Amino acid sequence: MTPAYEQLLQQLKRLPGLGYRSAERIALELLVEKPENMRELIESLEKASQQVGRCADCGNIAEDSICAVCADPRRQTRSLCIVEHVPDLVAVERSSAWAGRYHILHGKLSPIHGVGPGDLNLDSLVRRLEEDELEEIVLALSNDIEGQATCHYIQEEIVGDRSIRVSRIGFGLPSGGGVTFADSLTLKSALEGRRSYT
Amino acid sequence: MTPAYEQLLQQLKRLPGLGYRSAERIALELLVEKPENMRELIESLEKASQQVGRCADCGNIAEDSICAVCADPRRQTRSLCIVEHVPDLVAVERSSAWAGRYHILHGKLSPIHGVGPGDLNLDSLVRRLEEDELEEIVLALSNDIEGQATCHYIQEEIVGDRSIRVSRIGFGLPSGGGVTFADSLTLKSALEGRRSYT
Repeated sequence: MTPAYEQLLQQLKRLPGLGYRSAERIALELLVEKPENMRELIESLEKASQQVGRCADCGNIAEDSICAVCADPRRQTRSLCIVEHVPDLVAVERSSAWAGRYHILHGKLSPIHGVGPGDLNLDSLVRRLEEDELEEIVLALSNDIEGQATCHYIQEEIVGDRSIRVSRIGFGLPSGGGVTFADSLTLKSALEGRRSYT
Repeated sequence: MTPAYEQLLQQLKRLPGLGYRSAERIALELLVEKPENMRELIESLEKASQQVGRCADCGNIAEDSICAVCADPRRQTRSLCIVEHVPDLVAVERSSAWAGRYHILHGKLSPIHGVGPGDLNLDSLVRRLEEDELEEIVLALSNDIEGQATCHYIQEEIVGDRSIRVSRIGFGLPSGGGVTFADSLTLKSALEGRRSYT
C-alpha cells in the first residue's frame, strides 16, 4: 500500500506468533482505527528497551541489577531451577510449583547450531555455586538431545564433585493428555519415568 | 516481573488478535532473545505513524495526499466500491476481483453505538459523486442490520436521484462451505440471493 506501511508490516511479521494477516490487522488498527494507541505502544517499547536489562545473578529480566525473583526474601535461596529461556521461568512461576530461585542459560548446548558452553550464561552459575551455598539444582531443560547434553555438561563440568543434589524434571504424559495421542518419545519418557503406584 | 515489562505487556495485549500468552512471547523475544529487532520495530512504528495519513479522496491509508489506488491510472475511475474499513479494501484487493476505486466509510451507521452519518467518511463521498462522473457504486458492507441501514442511507440520502447504478455485493455460502455448516442467516441470504441456473 505505502512504503512505511509495508516496512511496518515486515517488522511485525518477524514477531513470534504473528503471520501476514495478524500483522496486517495490527498495523491497520494502529494506523487507521486507533492511532491514539500508537504513541503509548511506542513509548512502552522505548521504556522497556531502555530500562529492562538482565539480572546479574540469574539472567532473568530486571530493572535493577538484581531481578524481582532474586531480590524476593521469601524465596528459598539454596535451591536453583535451571531453565533455558525467560519464558520457561515465567511458565514455572505461573504453576506456583517452585519456591526457590532460577538460573537462565539463554539457550542450550547445540554443536549443530554452533552453541558451545561459552555462549550460555554459565559464568554466573559457577559464581553462584561458589558463593550461594546451594543445596539443590533442578534441571528444567527440554526433553531432547540438546537438553540432555546440556544437563550432562552442567552435572559433569559445572557441578562436578560438589555435594549438591542435582535432578531433572519429570517427563511423561502432559496433564489431560491420553496415551492414544502421545507421541512415541513422550511415551518412551513416560515409561522410563514410571513410579511405583502405592 | 518488572514495571516497564508489565506496561509493555499491557500495550501489546491491546493489539487485535493478541492475548496474554502471545503478548508475553513477543515482549520477551524483543527484550531477551532479539533485542536487535527492538530498535527497528520502534523506528518502523514511528515512521509509519508520522508518514501514513488518509487519502483525501477515498479514506484509504496514504503517504501522499492521494493513496496508491486512487493515484493508479489503470483503475477504472467511474466505479466505486464502498467498504467499511481499510482491511476490507485490502481483502477485496487480495481477491483481484475489483478494478475500480474504493471509498472507505471508517464505520457503519449504528444508533446503538452512537455512530451517525456525521461520524462516517461521507463528505468526500458526496464530493466524489459531484466531481467524478461516477457510473457505478458497489456497496460492500457487512451482512447485518447496521450494514443494511448504511446501504439504505447511502442509496436514499447520498445517491438520491442521480443516475448511478447502485448494487450490494452478493451474500450466501462462502467458498468451500457446505449447507450443513452454514448458519441460518447465511442460508437465508443465500436463498434470497439465488440465481437462475443455466
